[in-house]
Amino acid sequence: VKVLVIGGTGTIGGAVAQALSHRHDVIACGLTSGDVQADITEPDNIRDLFSGAGPVDAVVVTAGEATFKPLAEMTEEDYETGFRSKLMGQVNVVRLGEPHVRDNGSFTLTSGITSHEPMAGSTGFSMVNAAIEGFVRAAALELPRGIRINAVSPQWASQTLELYGMDPSMGLPPERLAAGYVESVEGKRTGLVIDAGWRYDGSDIVSVDAP
Amino acid sequence: VKVLVIGGTGTIGGAVAQALSHRHDVIACGLTSGDVQADITEPDNIRDLFSGAGPVDAVVVTAGEATFKPLAEMTEEDYETGFRSKLMGQVNVVRLGEPHVRDNGSFTLTSGITSHEPMAGSTGFSMVNAAIEGFVRAAALELPRGIRINAVSPQWASQTLELYGMDPSMGLPPERLAAGYVESVEGKRTGLVIDAGWRYDGSDIVSVDAP
Repeated sequence: VKVLVIGGTGTIGGAVAQALSHRHDVIACGLTSGDVQADITEPDNIRDLFSGAGPVDAVVVTAGEATFKPLAEMTEEDYETGFRSKLMGQVNVVRLGEPHVRDNGSFTLTSGITSHEPMAGSTGFSMVNAAIEGFVRAAALELPRGIRINAVSPQWASQTLELYGMDPSMGLPPERLAAGYVESVEGKRTGLVIDAGWRYDGSDIVSVDAP
Repeated sequence: VKVLVIGGTGTIGGAVAQALSHRHDVIACGLTSGDVQADITEPDNIRDLFSGAGPVDAVVVTAGEATFKPLAEMTEEDYETGFRSKLMGQVNVVRLGEPHVRDNGSFTLTSGITSHEPMAGSTGFSMVNAAIEGFVRAAALELPRGIRINAVSPQWASQTLELYGMDPSMGLPPERLAAGYVESVEGKRTGLVIDAGWRYDGSDIVSVDAP
């Protein structure tokens, strides 16, 4: 099937695009690189992306920003960044992309482990990640034409921890996080929050190549 | 103890103020009525409210709006309403009110059952309610001086269902929903989402008068 991976040039998105490419036609969308480009904080960019990419069977989003900063230092603008980018960016991909998704297609959004497993500094992320999960549970009841929607909640990727100055050995390699996305795209369920990597113990949880 | 109930003139807030008044000094804050007035979508209103109400031991918020409308009819502005009002209104009460809360005091915010039990038309509420829960779990790790924070997730109140044109017999009388707020104010736990009324079977779940 034809899968559009928005954020497909990033840490997790690149691993998702790679995992899906074994069996599907993948279009990787980046901010400035990839097969196509879009900034999901701009609704017109989203409209142009879908007009250009044509009808697709599945849309995966691994793009969007939020702010990681101590509660006492978080500003109104910091919370707004997460709302505009990681939250409404993904919600607008669903709202504006839906007419371009084929019958029985799917959306897979990205929340994150801090939704339910917070840490000091995560209020901006915890709020937005939980919001995405709430939206997905509700939107699953109303999407037309058999279109499904799930959220994948990835554990920390090693590279992301490193980026934030934390111990990368506590994270998972992004290939391990990709399995949850494959499960969402290829499965039949909807309205789920799939904890990607959460139960990882060194063995594969979901086999990417033989689901 | 001294408890500020923001939204204390509303359906649920009025019942909460009443339940708390048995053992505490309650200041009820409304938009235009109550002991004091404030609009939590205006940060300056929140600052003035706390300056005037002086140091308090507990803050309960049962105020804030979001939009209930079919997914296909929800606009960017509809989602923004929930973000500005029910979500950031409550978050700003915590951010701006914290210096005015005494050591070992508490914040109790309001999410709602649609966070995890969505219905058609609830994407705006489901998103915001889940976001409040994510924020509360994270903020509990960082509030200073032993200050606690919980969210109460009320079941539908009969009056609210009636307001939205739904069957009021499916809802609960607001007095039954107040118990969860009393549990948050008087208990010792933090970072919780308390399902108020969720397990209600006609008997009291939490006794308001003898916790």
